[in-house]
Order: sequence, then structure tokens, then C-alpha cells
Amino acid sequence: MQGPPQTPRQPRPLPQTPPRSAAYAPTDRTVPTRSADRASYDREVVHAILDEGHLCHLGFVRDGAPVVLPTLYARVGERLYVHGSTGSRPLRMAGGKDSGLPVCLTVTHVDALVLARSAFHHSMNYRSVVAHGTAYDVTDPEEKRAALDALVDQVVPGRSRDSRPANRKELAATAVLRLDLREVSAKARTGGVNDEAEDLALPHWAGLVPLRKGYGTPVADPALAPGTALPDYLKV
Amino acid sequence: MQGPPQTPRQPRPLPQTPPRSAAYAPTDRTVPTRSADRASYDREVVHAILDEGHLCHLGFVRDGAPVVLPTLYARVGERLYVHGSTGSRPLRMAGGKDSGLPVCLTVTHVDALVLARSAFHHSMNYRSVVAHGTAYDVTDPEEKRAALDALVDQVVPGRSRDSRPANRKELAATAVLRLDLREVSAKARTGGVNDEAEDLALPHWAGLVPLRKGYGTPVADPALAPGTALPDYLKV
Repeated sequence: MQGPPQTPRQPRPLPQTPPRSAAYAPTDRTVPTRSADRASYDREVVHAILDEGHLCHLGFVRDGAPVVLPTLYARVGERLYVHGSTGSRPLRMAGGKDSGLPVCLTVTHVDALVLARSAFHHSMNYRSVVAHGTAYDVTDPEEKRAALDALVDQVVPGRSRDSRPANRKELAATAVLRLDLREVSAKARTGGVNDEAEDLALPHWAGLVPLRKGYGTPVADPALAPGTALPDYLKV
Repeated sequence: MQGPPQTPRQPRPLPQTPPRSAAYAPTDRTVPTRSADRASYDREVVHAILDEGHLCHLGFVRDGAPVVLPTLYARVGERLYVHGSTGSRPLRMAGGKDSGLPVCLTVTHVDALVLARSAFHHSMNYRSVVAHGTAYDVTDPEEKRAALDALVDQVVPGRSRDSRPANRKELAATAVLRLDLREVSAKARTGGVNDEAEDLALPHWAGLVPLRKGYGTPVADPALAPGTALPDYLKV
């Protein structure tokens, strides 16, 4: 399924993956104005949060106004990929000769509701990653194929090997954007209730309500080829 | 807990709630470039998606670049509210005499993974709402209190009546933004696998994997006042 060699069409060299260090360098954009103690720039912390999910909220600017769309993502090393139809707005905006689209890609996992005795101290335990940067249209056919595999495998590990790969027409209809992980931070709240000392005697219940996420029983397509078994990677 | 009457400090009249009709008027921003058949402007559809959640991703523009942050929201009629510390960036940006912050507020529920025989037709069943507009700092004390109650009740219905309301100091430390629901659309994918006819005989399993979300057993704060029972609204 390897495509023909092509001359990359990018008008400028893509940023290289930064040398591997234990942490991303904080920037003005990644240091929060509030609760800075909840922020982390640790590479492993960021990777772990990203690897646990597959849905991000991608922000970009259109006509001066913000747009936030939900979309799938995949992480491959120090790169994030999103994809979509070549006709979709952000992907059209990122391509072309004046390529590159400033984006903010955010991934959030909610772990628990935090119910305090005071309304003010209600909170959530969560982990999030916010990545800033410029997203580039992926034009190298090998990178594009690998990114599309990664997008499928981010949702169901191993699935890309158990499906028909994209053909030429499908590849042409799909655009892939790459965002290098450079200006990125994680933020998390963990732990229990943080009420004021003078509120502790109030008669309101306080504590954590954990969120549970999981998958239900797979529902096979009615037109499944006879004898097709449920693959191991979908068995609970 | 009613605050003293105050003269509203907004420098311009806030937009009024639009007359109630069955649907929001589509605009250039709310008509998707792709899969327009998945879009809906129906008021009840939009409300139902919003009412099922409490976490949104709020986008705004800072120094020309997009920023997307996860935060809680509440819907009260045709208004959405978000809140935060008065020191936080978007809330500072929305306040002041030149008030109003262009935002995009997006809420997404993932319902199922859609595994197709072809990598290309992998998808998700989801429901999302995207609301565009200008968010205003809420300065009316009654509206602010009601919004804060709604933010607590959006997470756990009835909870605001079972917690200590914000005191003067907490109210002063909290900013609330309001976004009127005017330029808003819902988008949803439902149904089964959408493979090409020529792929149906492939030996790959295809179907839906439903996502399950729910709450686990509440974990009481160790310092709970003696005799405080788990409230009915938290019992599964």
C-alpha cells in the first residue's frame, strides 16, 4: 500500500521534533494565571493523559473569532495528528501555499465530582492537556498513512491492522494535520474536598463522586461476513 | 441571600433573549462545510444535548491565537453561563469597560465507536453543540447568584440547595460570563456502519461499541459532620 515517492509540497521546512528532555519548556501561554500548582510540563505526564483519550477539542481562529470543534487525535512520539475531509474548514485553512494554522488542541478527562459543603468549593478532579502551536498539512504520503493508522489505533489499539487501509481515492479525500508537541502543559486536580475550616461542621454531605467510563457490549453490523468473530481486542 | 439593588455596570445593553421559536436561525458560522445533514438548529435538540452535560470546551482568542480551556457550564433558558476566578485570563478579558469576549463554547457527548471494515469509514456516534457569540461579564448580583446556583445544579441537580451559598468574599472572587444562545447548532452522528458495498464481504469485524458513562460509589469526606447521610440525589 506504499504510495509513490513524492516531493514534499510544504513551502517551508517543518519544525523538527525537539531534543528529548524530561519536560516541555514553560511559556507565557502555558503558565496558567491561576492554580499554577496544578500545572505540569512533564513529558510523561502529558503523554499519559494524551494516550488515555482519543477525543480532543481543536480551536482555531476564523475571521478573528474562535472556533472549537470536537475531533479525534492520535499521538505519535512528539507529534499529534488530527484528520478530516479535505473540504473541511480547518483543514482547508491549514493547507495551501501559505500553510500552517495556529491551533490549540485540548484533551480533558474528568475523574470525579468534588462536592464541598460550600458551593464555592465545588470542583472536579480532572486531568487535561493543552497544546498550542501551528498545525501543518501532512503531505508526505508515508507520514500520512502512518498518521491515519495511528488515528484508528488511538481509538482501538491494533484495529488498523484489522481493517482495509485507505485506497488512493480515500487518501486523496482525507487531510491530516500535524501539531508538534512543543508548547504544551498538563493540568490536574486530584485529592479530596477543600472546604473552609469553619464550614466543616455544616450538615451538608461532602466528598467525591467518581466518574466511570467504559465500553458496553459490541453490537455487530447485521451484514457481517458469515463466520466473522468478535476480535480479541474488543473482548472486555 | 439577596444582594442590595445595584445599578448595572454594563456599558451597553445586553442582548435580549430572542423570541422563542422552534429553531435557531442558521448562520454562515453554524452551517458546516461537511456532513450538513448531521446538523440541527432545533432548540429542543440543542437544549437536550446541553442539559445532559456540564463540561464544555471554551475557545477564545488571545494575542491572535486560539485558546481552548475545559470548564463547567450551566444553561438557564437561552443563556449559558461559565465561571472562574476573577483573576483568570478569559474572565479578565471579558470584563472591564470595553466588555465582551468573542467565544465558541462546545459540548460533546460520544455515544459509540463505529468500527467499519475499512479504516476510512471508522467513525464515532456523537452529539455536540457549538455556540458562537460574545460572552459578557455578569454584573447584576441576582443574575450572578442564580448563575452560580445553576452551575452547581448542572453537575448535580438539587445540590445548590444543599450547600452553603457563596458569601460576599467568594462572590467577589468569582466572575461569571454569560453567552446568549443565538448562533448555535447541534451536530450528531447516529446509526450503524457505513461501509462501501464492495467491502461487505471482508473478514473484518464491524459494528458499534457503545460507550458507557456513569458514576461510581460516592466517597465521603473523612471529616464529615457526624450523622451526615448520603443525600438522595446521590443515590444510584
